[in-house]
Amino acid sequence: MAKIAVLGYGTVGSGIVEVLNTNKELIRERVGEAIDVKYILDLREFPGDPYESLVTHDFDAIAADPEVSVVCEAMGGTGAAYKFTKACLEAGKSVCTSNKALVAEYGTELMRIAKDKNCSYLFEASCGGGIPIIRPIRSSLCPERILAIKGILNGTTNYILTRMEQEGADFADVLKQAQELGYAEADPTADIEGHDACRKIAILSSLAYGKTVYYQDVETEGITKITTDDFAYMKQIGATIKLLGMSKEVNGAYYAQVAPFVLKKTNPLYSVNGVMNAILVTGNTLGDTMYYGAGAGSLPTASAVVSDVMECVMTKGETIDSHWSEEKLALSPLDGATRPFFVRVKERAEADIKAAFGEVKFLEPIAGETAFITAELSEAAFKKAAAEFEVISFLRVED
Amino acid sequence: MAKIAVLGYGTVGSGIVEVLNTNKELIRERVGEAIDVKYILDLREFPGDPYESLVTHDFDAIAADPEVSVVCEAMGGTGAAYKFTKACLEAGKSVCTSNKALVAEYGTELMRIAKDKNCSYLFEASCGGGIPIIRPIRSSLCPERILAIKGILNGTTNYILTRMEQEGADFADVLKQAQELGYAEADPTADIEGHDACRKIAILSSLAYGKTVYYQDVETEGITKITTDDFAYMKQIGATIKLLGMSKEVNGAYYAQVAPFVLKKTNPLYSVNGVMNAILVTGNTLGDTMYYGAGAGSLPTASAVVSDVMECVMTKGETIDSHWSEEKLALSPLDGATRPFFVRVKERAEADIKAAFGEVKFLEPIAGETAFITAELSEAAFKKAAAEFEVISFLRVED
Repeated sequence: MAKIAVLGYGTVGSGIVEVLNTNKELIRERVGEAIDVKYILDLREFPGDPYESLVTHDFDAIAADPEVSVVCEAMGGTGAAYKFTKACLEAGKSVCTSNKALVAEYGTELMRIAKDKNCSYLFEASCGGGIPIIRPIRSSLCPERILAIKGILNGTTNYILTRMEQEGADFADVLKQAQELGYAEADPTADIEGHDACRKIAILSSLAYGKTVYYQDVETEGITKITTDDFAYMKQIGATIKLLGMSKEVNGAYYAQVAPFVLKKTNPLYSVNGVMNAILVTGNTLGDTMYYGAGAGSLPTASAVVSDVMECVMTKGETIDSHWSEEKLALSPLDGATRPFFVRVKERAEADIKAAFGEVKFLEPIAGETAFITAELSEAAFKKAAAEFEVISFLRVED
Repeated sequence: MAKIAVLGYGTVGSGIVEVLNTNKELIRERVGEAIDVKYILDLREFPGDPYESLVTHDFDAIAADPEVSVVCEAMGGTGAAYKFTKACLEAGKSVCTSNKALVAEYGTELMRIAKDKNCSYLFEASCGGGIPIIRPIRSSLCPERILAIKGILNGTTNYILTRMEQEGADFADVLKQAQELGYAEADPTADIEGHDACRKIAILSSLAYGKTVYYQDVETEGITKITTDDFAYMKQIGATIKLLGMSKEVNGAYYAQVAPFVLKKTNPLYSVNGVMNAILVTGNTLGDTMYYGAGAGSLPTASAVVSDVMECVMTKGETIDSHWSEEKLALSPLDGATRPFFVRVKERAEADIKAAFGEVKFLEPIAGETAFITAELSEAAFKKAAAEFEVISFLRVED
């Protein structure tokens, strides 16, 4: 029987205990031994909770208990979570987590310690919640040179954008309702400014390209400037707006970015609505594959953590190698990235627009505006052309 | 260095050699050793082919060569492919295949031999071509009790249905064009009658539920009866028609079926168009996840085979357990499965329809017809009610 500890008894931590309990028997069969929670670490008390007797405030007892072979870190943040994770790995205990902030900040250091101690640091749940994405990149796509990753990686913003599209509702109104429904936090900054998606695309890109993409290097833009007018234009062209975390390799140059993008109907990400997430991965021989599911939520996220726990138990004494080196991946400035742009400017003659941007497709404009979609341009060329106009807003277009 | 053999140098076999060659260096890095093709078995000669010197007609030499540790079976069929696979496994060589017919027919026997000989029989490419689905079910979804699998598992039929929907074209015309474009075979029976999807859902269901689902037990219906009129009705309700291979567990009863289904816009499978495939898997704690990609094609299918080869090389001397037992899974008769039905009957009074089917939603009918969608009914109840009418056609409705 394998004994584990769960650090943090909140949404994800309690989900881990629930998944292990609900599917106890089949987990035992598939692993070849039972997996038992021996400790639940939390600062709080949980009187009346069915697992009350497992709750402890004493981390050191967990770290010192040789019976505990795997630890689930579901505390979040990069403070105590970092300290405890490091201590567990140094004690030879594998750690499984949903903590994207910690993985993005200290992932390579923690994986190095795991390797030294013949255990593993796994984080399937850190990107895309319950969507299997990290293990498929590592195992199923192992023969592939990955050329691009494009993901709807944040459920809160996707919920907001979906409702804005479907109801013609305002950003501020939908955000308020999302907060009331618990889909957005009281301080929604990390979601709506793209910081959450930024950490996830940094992790996924590091795994895909094998070198470290620092989240600080990923240019990040949120959805706060998207308006109902933008969506009205989208209707004209049968497109929608999604916040994407994306990275790609073009002729040996790597680009990474978080921003709202115009997506056409033919894009598999187009119909990913509400709180659902999806990640489109392009391999050099495989082409596109997409992974879709619940990007958050207690049980889906917990199920991903438990899949890691099971793998750690089945590979005890070994290190699962994520093929993510500490070497920094040099990202190219976005100026060199090329794509079409959707642009709204203060009303101007079509001839002026064409003189600056070349061939464009004009849309039926709102009064006082001229709106159009350019041909494929580099960011640098776009910015140069746009400098001559009073730009109301612009969005990048993905096919 | 690991030496492998490729049996069959057709679409998939040549793709395997190409993927191994194109990504030689990264495969070597990730596996920790190079993977080299030592033999290509085919009855034909390939003068001028860059790998001409590897081509052999002598299977026995491959089986007897102790240097060959993994064999890719890309011959297809259940004759020589079965004999050769068995001989390789008995010689302790792992076998990786895209051959769904062989896996559906002899999978459990071949996995048992692999287990006895400490090698593996893997078949990621047998379902969904390049889409990672078998390894995610085995590893990522290992904590889950799987409740349902619903898949667009055949690219040919999905291409035909997509064009019928988008162009209002006739089945026969689209099939003819699909044959000209190479998307359908000269004898399209296996695709359009659902036999191909049937073998795939049998394999996926066996993996998901852990016991053998015999493809012969899966009630299978193709798409030959779908007409432009059916799609005209779908437009009224914002739905489409897709050929699904599906199985599910409801209160301990298992159902499996291949048939065209009505899919609403909210279903993630709704927007899977053309030759693309996708598989929606429901877990008891995870909820829905979906896997999307190219369901066929030389390189995508080959990439999936190569991912298996890499796993076999990295786990040499061990058996990868697919958790698929030889015990037969008893399927329940479809009579007990409940869902809404889309029905077209020769024109009748609405009162008659309601008297027989209960509450229904009437559609704007074609002249001489009455068309409607029922509430959720069991197949048995539906058939009983339908017996009183001249039924033109009916389709089952998935949410």
